[in-house]
Amino acid sequence: MQIGVLGTGVTGLTIGSKLVQLGHEVMLGSREEANAEAVAWAKEEGHHALYGTFMNAAAFGEIVFNCTLGSASLQALTLAGAENLRGKILIDISNPVDYSTEIWTMTVSNTDSLGEQIQRAFPEARVVKTLNTMNANVMVDPAKLSEKSDVFVGGNDIEAKAVVVAILRDWFGWKSIIDLGDITTSRGVEMFVLLWQNLQRIVRSPRFNIRVVTS
Amino acid sequence: MQIGVLGTGVTGLTIGSKLVQLGHEVMLGSREEANAEAVAWAKEEGHHALYGTFMNAAAFGEIVFNCTLGSASLQALTLAGAENLRGKILIDISNPVDYSTEIWTMTVSNTDSLGEQIQRAFPEARVVKTLNTMNANVMVDPAKLSEKSDVFVGGNDIEAKAVVVAILRDWFGWKSIIDLGDITTSRGVEMFVLLWQNLQRIVRSPRFNIRVVTS
Repeated sequence: MQIGVLGTGVTGLTIGSKLVQLGHEVMLGSREEANAEAVAWAKEEGHHALYGTFMNAAAFGEIVFNCTLGSASLQALTLAGAENLRGKILIDISNPVDYSTEIWTMTVSNTDSLGEQIQRAFPEARVVKTLNTMNANVMVDPAKLSEKSDVFVGGNDIEAKAVVVAILRDWFGWKSIIDLGDITTSRGVEMFVLLWQNLQRIVRSPRFNIRVVTS
Repeated sequence: MQIGVLGTGVTGLTIGSKLVQLGHEVMLGSREEANAEAVAWAKEEGHHALYGTFMNAAAFGEIVFNCTLGSASLQALTLAGAENLRGKILIDISNPVDYSTEIWTMTVSNTDSLGEQIQRAFPEARVVKTLNTMNANVMVDPAKLSEKSDVFVGGNDIEAKAVVVAILRDWFGWKSIIDLGDITTSRGVEMFVLLWQNLQRIVRSPRFNIRVVTS
């Protein structure tokens, strides 16, 4: 499959590499046509690994991953172009967090979320919020943790969510996938990031996740 | 031990009953001196179960639990009186949530928290935030869940946290207690409530909790 990955930070590179390893053709998108990170990544990953602008990557992908920083996501997706996202599944991994303060703060929260903002701004994209509650290494290799943990999905398009659930299960190896509901559930998973920051300090590693324990 | 429990909702009644069962003398505090819920509870629980105003309960308690609704907590504690909280451990279980909307919203979040507001308003109280990430029945009986799960504590007073950790472990049966840090960590655990609301819908029961899975 042809997949567009927007963002050349750790999350974009990690997701991109995993998808290439799975045999997909991946175009990493960034603001510039030849972002240094993306060029180095493509050289490393071989001929199935491509790079280009946000617009190139979105046009290339049958499915698009948003791995940009939350603070830049709406702008990046605007550069990608609504016409290049139309009808496509847009897997939104971003978190609207300002990392510049010692205690992180959300740039949108409580009564709205970045997931909702993206769905409103691109009504013809099929936005599915997922994977944003953990570190990139855990996203693509959940079995590396000592026990089973949970990944959440949320979105308005039932079919799009079913495809994303299959991707999480069959491509990334997730055994426990919790469909929280529509795109408004982005609020809860995005606001979890502040607890995640605290936990990261305690665990002394970003390689952890949570699991829901029932009675 | 003499313990004050502020609030006569499900959380206050459940915590109060557990403490009475453990052999403590508990005074349930509410806005009125003889709140109907509190009177009925005291009748049910026997001679170690007392009731009174917020002020009565705070004065009575060597330790005080804040189990009031988050929207009313600062007012309830003001009625309790700073002089009755001075030097005491104040275990804050409240969440600053407006439950009136279908999707709950926080009345304080992101750059501040109710835990911090309480500590600022009552600087001589030793505020420890804990137990607010779960349902009351789970708080006092974590072993009822199918597997071990986690409870978080946060607060500025190291000794107060040590006492609360002992209470959670020895009185309530918690086996995994995570000290997140100072009172600013209230932000993360309070904002978790929105994800909790989504999870409650999926689990179809409030009897669940989360567990941190590491590598």
